[in-house]
Amino acid sequence: MQADAVFLLSVGNMEIPPSWARPETVIIHCESALEPGMTDYLLHNVTHSCSRWLQEQQYRPWNLCSCKLQPLNPVPTDIEISRAQTPKPVAQLAEEIGLLPEELEAYGRNKAKVQLSLLDRLHSQPDGKYVLVAGITPTPFGEGKTTVTVGLVQALSAHLKLNSFACLRQPSQGPTFGVKGGAAGGGYAQVIPMEEFNLHLTGDIHAITAANNLLAAAIDARILHEATQSDKSLFKRLVPSVYGVRKFSPIQISRLRRLGINKTDPASLTPEEVSSFVRLDLDPSQITWQRVVDTNDRFLRKITVGQASTEKGQIRETGFDIAVASEIMAILALADSLKDMKNRLARMVVGSSRSGEPVTAEDLGVSGALAVLMKDAIKPTLMQTLEGTPVFVHAGPFANIAHGSSSVLADKLALKLVGRDGYVVTEAGFGADIGMEKFFNIKCRASGLSPNVMVLVATVRALKMHGGGPNVSAGAPLPKEYINENLSLVAGGCHSNLKKQIQNAHLFGVPVVVALNVFKTDTQAEIDLVCQLAKECGASDAVPCRHWSQGGRGSLELAMAVKEAAGRPTNFQFLYNTEMPILEKIRTIAQKVYGAEDIDLSPEASSKIDYYNQQGYGSLPICMAKTHLSLSHMPDKKGAPTGFVLPIRDVRASIGAGFIFPLVGTMSTMPGLPTRPCFYDIDLDPETEEIIGLF
Amino acid sequence: MQADAVFLLSVGNMEIPPSWARPETVIIHCESALEPGMTDYLLHNVTHSCSRWLQEQQYRPWNLCSCKLQPLNPVPTDIEISRAQTPKPVAQLAEEIGLLPEELEAYGRNKAKVQLSLLDRLHSQPDGKYVLVAGITPTPFGEGKTTVTVGLVQALSAHLKLNSFACLRQPSQGPTFGVKGGAAGGGYAQVIPMEEFNLHLTGDIHAITAANNLLAAAIDARILHEATQSDKSLFKRLVPSVYGVRKFSPIQISRLRRLGINKTDPASLTPEEVSSFVRLDLDPSQITWQRVVDTNDRFLRKITVGQASTEKGQIRETGFDIAVASEIMAILALADSLKDMKNRLARMVVGSSRSGEPVTAEDLGVSGALAVLMKDAIKPTLMQTLEGTPVFVHAGPFANIAHGSSSVLADKLALKLVGRDGYVVTEAGFGADIGMEKFFNIKCRASGLSPNVMVLVATVRALKMHGGGPNVSAGAPLPKEYINENLSLVAGGCHSNLKKQIQNAHLFGVPVVVALNVFKTDTQAEIDLVCQLAKECGASDAVPCRHWSQGGRGSLELAMAVKEAAGRPTNFQFLYNTEMPILEKIRTIAQKVYGAEDIDLSPEASSKIDYYNQQGYGSLPICMAKTHLSLSHMPDKKGAPTGFVLPIRDVRASIGAGFIFPLVGTMSTMPGLPTRPCFYDIDLDPETEEIIGLF
Repeated sequence: MQADAVFLLSVGNMEIPPSWARPETVIIHCESALEPGMTDYLLHNVTHSCSRWLQEQQYRPWNLCSCKLQPLNPVPTDIEISRAQTPKPVAQLAEEIGLLPEELEAYGRNKAKVQLSLLDRLHSQPDGKYVLVAGITPTPFGEGKTTVTVGLVQALSAHLKLNSFACLRQPSQGPTFGVKGGAAGGGYAQVIPMEEFNLHLTGDIHAITAANNLLAAAIDARILHEATQSDKSLFKRLVPSVYGVRKFSPIQISRLRRLGINKTDPASLTPEEVSSFVRLDLDPSQITWQRVVDTNDRFLRKITVGQASTEKGQIRETGFDIAVASEIMAILALADSLKDMKNRLARMVVGSSRSGEPVTAEDLGVSGALAVLMKDAIKPTLMQTLEGTPVFVHAGPFANIAHGSSSVLADKLALKLVGRDGYVVTEAGFGADIGMEKFFNIKCRASGLSPNVMVLVATVRALKMHGGGPNVSAGAPLPKEYINENLSLVAGGCHSNLKKQIQNAHLFGVPVVVALNVFKTDTQAEIDLVCQLAKECGASDAVPCRHWSQGGRGSLELAMAVKEAAGRPTNFQFLYNTEMPILEKIRTIAQKVYGAEDIDLSPEASSKIDYYNQQGYGSLPICMAKTHLSLSHMPDKKGAPTGFVLPIRDVRASIGAGFIFPLVGTMSTMPGLPTRPCFYDIDLDPETEEIIGLF
Repeated sequence: MQADAVFLLSVGNMEIPPSWARPETVIIHCESALEPGMTDYLLHNVTHSCSRWLQEQQYRPWNLCSCKLQPLNPVPTDIEISRAQTPKPVAQLAEEIGLLPEELEAYGRNKAKVQLSLLDRLHSQPDGKYVLVAGITPTPFGEGKTTVTVGLVQALSAHLKLNSFACLRQPSQGPTFGVKGGAAGGGYAQVIPMEEFNLHLTGDIHAITAANNLLAAAIDARILHEATQSDKSLFKRLVPSVYGVRKFSPIQISRLRRLGINKTDPASLTPEEVSSFVRLDLDPSQITWQRVVDTNDRFLRKITVGQASTEKGQIRETGFDIAVASEIMAILALADSLKDMKNRLARMVVGSSRSGEPVTAEDLGVSGALAVLMKDAIKPTLMQTLEGTPVFVHAGPFANIAHGSSSVLADKLALKLVGRDGYVVTEAGFGADIGMEKFFNIKCRASGLSPNVMVLVATVRALKMHGGGPNVSAGAPLPKEYINENLSLVAGGCHSNLKKQIQNAHLFGVPVVVALNVFKTDTQAEIDLVCQLAKECGASDAVPCRHWSQGGRGSLELAMAVKEAAGRPTNFQFLYNTEMPILEKIRTIAQKVYGAEDIDLSPEASSKIDYYNQQGYGSLPICMAKTHLSLSHMPDKKGAPTGFVLPIRDVRASIGAGFIFPLVGTMSTMPGLPTRPCFYDIDLDPETEEIIGLF
C-alpha cells in the first residue's frame, strides 16, 4: 500500500473541506478491521503525506498548458492576431493555476470573475515576486508598457515555465471608440479575446457609472427636496411611519452618530436635532461630485442642469467626467476587501454644507446602495494572454486625478496564486515620475505590498525626443530623425530622462531593469547604445524586447533579467511620511521626483490646504495631477528639466479613495472625439458575429 | 440487438452534427463483417429509429427537476423568499430544457445568455402556444402582471408538467433605487436570484446606455467639427491618407450611395460632392437624439451642454432620458436577428439637417460601432422561477414612448424550446389599452407571431376604483372602500373597464382569460362576483390566483383555464392596415380601443405628420404615448370613459425601431427621486455578501 494513497484514510466522518477536493485527494475505504499496530503505521503515513501534500499545494509550479504562437511577418492587425488564436476555456485556465471551481464565476467562455474568498484559502501561502512596469516620459503615442507587461508574462510562464500573472487595468470605452483604440496590448503580446477585453468585459466600469450617477442624482434631488419642504415634512418623509411605527434606517443612525446625536427613537429628537438631521444644507456652488459617462463626450465638460420647470429653478453648473475618472474607480483599485470598499464609499465627500462641513455619501443615505451596485465589480476578472498564461483585468483609475494602477486585490490574489517562486507583473500609468511614484506612495501604502523590481520601458523614439529630437505629435508624420539612425539623440535621451527615471526608482530602493521596446526602424547600434548607457545610469540590466513581433519568445532576455534582479534583496521605502504637512509632501515629490527648484501655491490652493488640515485630512498621501508629457509641468520640456518652479493651481481631495490631489495646470477629465473617430472603421459581420476594425 | 441501439450504425464517416451529441445518441462499432440481408434489416431499423428519435427530440416534455416550495405565512419579504431558495445551476436548467452546452454563455452560476444559433437548430420545430399577459387599467400601485406571469409558468411547468417559459422585461435600475423597487415578481412568484435580476443582470441596459451615448457624443462632436473646419479640411480628416492612400470606409460608401454618389475613389469627387459628403449640416434645434442614464436623475431632464470654452460656443439645450427609453432599447426588443438589429441601428434618425433632410446614425459613421456594443445584448438571458422553471429576461422598452414588451427574440427562442404542446407566457406593460394594443399591432407585426390567449390581470382594488371608489394614490393610506367588502363598486369596475379591455382583445380575435390577483382583504363574495361578471362580459374564463402567497400551486386554476382557451382556434387580426394614412391609424386606435369620440391634432402634430409622409415613413405602425392610468388621456377618468376627444399634442418617430409615436399629453421620460428613495434601506453585509432591503 502506497503512503500517498492512504492519507485520507483516517478522516472517518470528518467533513472534507472543499479545498481538499482535488485530483490528488484519494480516499480509501477499508472494509476489513485493522490489525493492531497497523493504526499507528497508517497514522504516521497520513501525517507525512498530509504535510507533503500541503507543501505541494503551496509551492507547486503550475501545470500550465501554454498555447503555441506562430508569428507571421509582416505582423497582422491586433484583432486578426487575437482572433487567430483560440483561447483555452477559462475554467481550464483556472484549474491549471490552482483555482477551485467554486471560486470562479464564468462570464461566457473566455473570462471569469474570481471570488475574494481565495485570499482566505491561500492566506498562509507566501507571496510571489512583485514586478512593476513603468515607463520613461512618453511621446503622445505611448511607448508600450502594456505590451511589455504581456510579453514579459508570456516569456516567464510559457517559455521559462515560471508561474506568472499579469495584472492590467480595464480600459475605458472612450478611447476605444475615440482615438487611441484598445488597450489589450498589441501584436503578439495581447490579452485575448481583445474585443472582450476592450468592450464591456464583466461590466465593472458600467457598475461604477451606475453607482457614481446614483450618488449624483441623490445630491441634486436632495437639494430640491430640502429647498421645497419644512423640517417637519422632510422628517416625516425621511423617517416614514410604516404600519404606525417610525424607525431610523441603519444608515440614518450612522448620520445621527456623526452629528453627535446618540438617539435611536425618532420621537425623542429635539426640533434642533431634527433640523440638523434632515438638512444637509448642501451649498450648490461647493458640490465637487460630477456625473460620469464612459464615452468621450466633450459637450458634457461643462453643463447646466435642472432647467426643467419640475426642478423649480434649482439650476446649477456642473459637468461630466469620463467614468474611469470617478472616485469610485479609485476606490475599487485601492480597496482590499468588500468591507473596506463599503467604508470608503460611505466616506466619499461630495461637497460641503453652507457652513463648510463636508457632506458624505453616507449622509445622503445612498452608500449601502452604492456597495450593492459594486459588489461584483470588486472581484477581479481572469483572462489570458495569446500564449495561454493568466491575466487579471481589474480597475483602471485615471493616471492624473487618480493613481493610475490596477487593483490592490488583483495583485494580492495573483501574488498568492503564483506562490513563492512566481511573478506578478503589474503596470503603472503614464511615465514613472507619475505612475511609479503614485504606485509606491499610494498603492503600496494601501496594500502593504512591496515591489521587488521595476521594469522601465523605453523606446528609441522617445529617447530621441528627450535627446533633443524635433516635436512628435499624433496625426503628423514622424520626422526623419526618428526613422534614421541617430546615436547622439539616443544618447541625449538616455543621459536625461532615462537616467532621471532610474534615479527616481532608486529613491524608493527598488532595482530597475530597462526594457527597450524595439521598433523595426531601430538599428542595432541604437539598441546596443541604449542598453549600455542604461546600465551606466544605474539600471541593474537593460535588454531589447521583441514581444510585439515574436510574442513571449521575444521577451526571454527581459524575463531572465527580471528573474535575476528580483532575486536580490530590496530596501523598499516610501518617499515621504504621511504625517508630514501637505505642503511638504507636495514639495518633496516636486523636488525629488520632478527635479523642480520649488513649488508655487496659488491662494486657492493654499486655502484648500488649510481647509483639508482643519477637516482632519492632512495625513492623506498626495496624488499629483500633472502632465505626463514632461517631468515638469510644461509638456514641451523634454529630457530632465531642472530649475523650474512647479505651480500648484488648486488642491482637491478624494476622501473615500484616500488622497489629496494637487492640480498642476488644467487636467481634462473628459476626452473629446476627433473629426474621424476610430468608430468609422469598426463594424460587425452579422453572419459570423466577428468584429472588424478594432485595434 | 435492440433497434434503438443501432440507429447510428450506418452513418459511417458522416459528420455527426453537434445537435445529435446527446445522451440518447448511441454509436455501435461493428467489428465483424455483416451477413448478406443483414444490411437491409439494419437500414430499416436505422430509418425507423431515426425518425422516432427526431420526433422525440421535437415534442419531448422536459425532464424538469422542479424546486419544491414551502410557503410561509405571513409571507416574508421578496428578498428573504428569493434567498431562501437555492437556484439550480443554470447549466443544469439549460440541459433540462434541451439547450446544448455550446449554446449557453454562463454569467456566474445563476444566469446565462443563450445563443441565437438555437433558432437555426430548432428551425423545423413547431412553436408552442403563445400567451400574452396584460392588465386592466391599473392603480398607481400596479396590479401584478409580472407575478401573474411567473405564477402561471410555475403552475404550468412545475405542477402540470407542461413545458412553459416566461418572457420578462429587464427592469431599469432607476425604479429599483427610486420608488418602485424591483421587478422580478413578488412573494412566491419570483424570478431568482431577485437581486441579480434587478441589478446589472448581464449588462444589456449598460450596453444600450453606452451605445446611445456614443451616438450622442458623435452628434455634438460632428457639429463642432463642421462648424470649425472647411470642406477640404473635413474631407482630409474624414478620409485620411494612410501610407499615402485615401480610402472610404464601408460606412462612408453607404452614405455616398444614399447621397446618390456612386463613386469609390475619394479623388474623383467633385467639390460639390465633397461638400455634401462631409457636411451633415445638422440643425442644432432639430436634434431629437437625447443622452441616457439608467438612474432617476430629474435634474437631467432639461440641460444646456457645450458650455466649456473648448466647445467654442456651440451650446444647446437638450436632456437625458432614462436608459430604457432609448430607441436602442426598442430596437433590441423588436429585432429578429443580429443583421436586423444592425440595419435598424443604422436607420435611426437623430435629427435633421438645416435643409430638412433626416440624418441617421449611419451618416455619422457610428452604426457599426453601435452594433459592436450591442452584439452580446441581443442574446436573451436565461434565469429561473422560485420553482426552477425557465425564464427569459430580455429588453424592457418604456411602455409609453415605446411599445413596452420584452423581446421578439426571447419569445421566438422560447416558443421553439417549449415545442408544440408547450406555453410561452409573455407580458405587455401598462394596461391592455396600451400594452396589448402595441403588443399586437407593433410587436406581433414585427415578429410574425400570433398569440393564442390573452390573460387579463385584474384586482378587486383596481375594479373598485373603476367602479367609482375614491382616489387611490401612492404614499397615502388606502381608503376603507378598498379594505372592506363592497360588491357594487366591484360590479361597477367589471361593467366598465374590465368589459372594455375584454372587448379590446376581441377586436384582435384573441380569447381572454381573466386572472383575478387575490389580495388578503378580498372577500369570497367579491372574488365570485368578479369571476361571474367577467364571463358575462365575454371572457372565456375567469379565475382567482393565489400565486403571491402559494406559488405555482396558487395559479393552477389559471393554468387549466389558459390550457383550455389555448386549445381553441384563434382568428388573430391586426387592428389596422399600416398602409392607412397616419391620421387614420391614430383615429382607429383612439376610437376603437380607447373609446374616444374623435382625435384633435395640434398644428405641430399635423405638420409633423406631413413631414413623415413626405420622408416616406407614412406606413409605419403607431405607438401611442398616453397615460396608463385611464383609457382616456385624463388620468382621473376611471372606468370606461366615452365621448371625449383625444388631443394629439405632437407626433414623433423612432425610425430604427420602426414606429411613429403620437404624444397624448406630456410624457416624462426621466423619473425623479423622492425625498426618501428606496436606497435608504438597501445595504450589503460585507461578511456574507448578502444584500439587505431590496424588494
